[in-house]
Amino acid sequence: MPNPTAAMLVIGDEILSGRTRDANMHHLAQEFAKHGIDLKEVRIVSDDRDAIVAALNALRQGYDHVVTSGGIGPTHDDITAPCVAKAFGVAISVRDDARAILQEHYDRQGSELNEARLRMARIPDGATLIENPVSAAPGFTLGNVHVMAGVPAVFQAMVSSVLPKMTGGQPLLSQTLRIERGEGDIAGPLSALAERFTDLSIGSYPYQRNGVYGANVVIRGTDGGRIDAAMSELSALFPEAVSH
Amino acid sequence: MPNPTAAMLVIGDEILSGRTRDANMHHLAQEFAKHGIDLKEVRIVSDDRDAIVAALNALRQGYDHVVTSGGIGPTHDDITAPCVAKAFGVAISVRDDARAILQEHYDRQGSELNEARLRMARIPDGATLIENPVSAAPGFTLGNVHVMAGVPAVFQAMVSSVLPKMTGGQPLLSQTLRIERGEGDIAGPLSALAERFTDLSIGSYPYQRNGVYGANVVIRGTDGGRIDAAMSELSALFPEAVSH
Repeated sequence: MPNPTAAMLVIGDEILSGRTRDANMHHLAQEFAKHGIDLKEVRIVSDDRDAIVAALNALRQGYDHVVTSGGIGPTHDDITAPCVAKAFGVAISVRDDARAILQEHYDRQGSELNEARLRMARIPDGATLIENPVSAAPGFTLGNVHVMAGVPAVFQAMVSSVLPKMTGGQPLLSQTLRIERGEGDIAGPLSALAERFTDLSIGSYPYQRNGVYGANVVIRGTDGGRIDAAMSELSALFPEAVSH
Repeated sequence: MPNPTAAMLVIGDEILSGRTRDANMHHLAQEFAKHGIDLKEVRIVSDDRDAIVAALNALRQGYDHVVTSGGIGPTHDDITAPCVAKAFGVAISVRDDARAILQEHYDRQGSELNEARLRMARIPDGATLIENPVSAAPGFTLGNVHVMAGVPAVFQAMVSSVLPKMTGGQPLLSQTLRIERGEGDIAGPLSALAERFTDLSIGSYPYQRNGVYGANVVIRGTDGGRIDAAMSELSALFPEAVSH
């Protein structure tokens, strides 16, 4: 059976404006690879209702799972939750269980659960909450969409909460061979190898370091024995290369 | 007149599998912000023909400019150029000027312009070449799509080649105020400020550092005077905050 597929939607003006680099995508990609879920697409859109709703609907129809990151805090630019409700055509309101989680958290902190913070208890109808052990305000899952915070520590905690509940497949395994030759010199043998190992994905990622051209050849798949076999053949062709 | 809009398409199995972190997106976002081009969306898709063609067609119809990154080298997994040709419905073949650039480069290196390397001279009909001062193999522009290499040094050089030819708008300016309070405490005043400065984008990016909650409030826009005005009001509300 093929692995489940997934997409990620990053709601991120701060990334599109060049202010910050995304960290959540890389984390999710690594976790999904370990868990046997194939991350097929990532989209980054700005804090714009129409853009978010359109992306949500395209991705949730195209993939088994969608993870969103960002836009579920208490400020005016946090619009992800109502956008998810709109994409699914359901209502959204402050929910008692989410409010209770926030009330307890802010009571313990000695802070007020004011109107702004109460926004974080707005949950679309039919969703289940995602635990947030870092800062209490929950994420939620609606259908195949998992809505998580953008702060990396919170995002990572939410991924840990949700991942065990997602049916995974075969973990994606990989081996890498660093070959210090121009890609043009290895392309022929590599292509021949890829044609014989069609169950594996063989990627070549060129680099240039101190004027020396080279490529990291990454062989990926779910069958470790097949990867070993392909890597042995490749290593025999380029005996000076370094596996890492 | 509003700024031109742009999208980026990253062709990147190596990012989706969690092997590497994208660097080109961050570079392009910063360059576009300086040049007054609004980066509105980024998509990352895998090395899959159908996915690349579909994304290309969606993005080139939705935005003034599209920049692609990756997949134009000599190996079997480099399929971006034929996908661009397919998206535009034009033919692709080895072009004399591109071949001459490669021939000169490999002659100088003492390497052979073999069949694999010649793949890098395949250019869709009607495209213009993008200079590559780093490793010779050119990118190309077809319609509003600018096709660039994935290796960061080459990508950056190609952006430098193309950017001066793209009509820019007003550079995106920004100021940031770091406020050491929970977002829930600043959300109310921030929302009121955003309602009065509708020409600016006011974003709040929460963080947690050593157990202390805070937020970076970023005010963005193209009118420096308006940003100053909004920032003065915000600073007056939170006198302990640090602008940076």
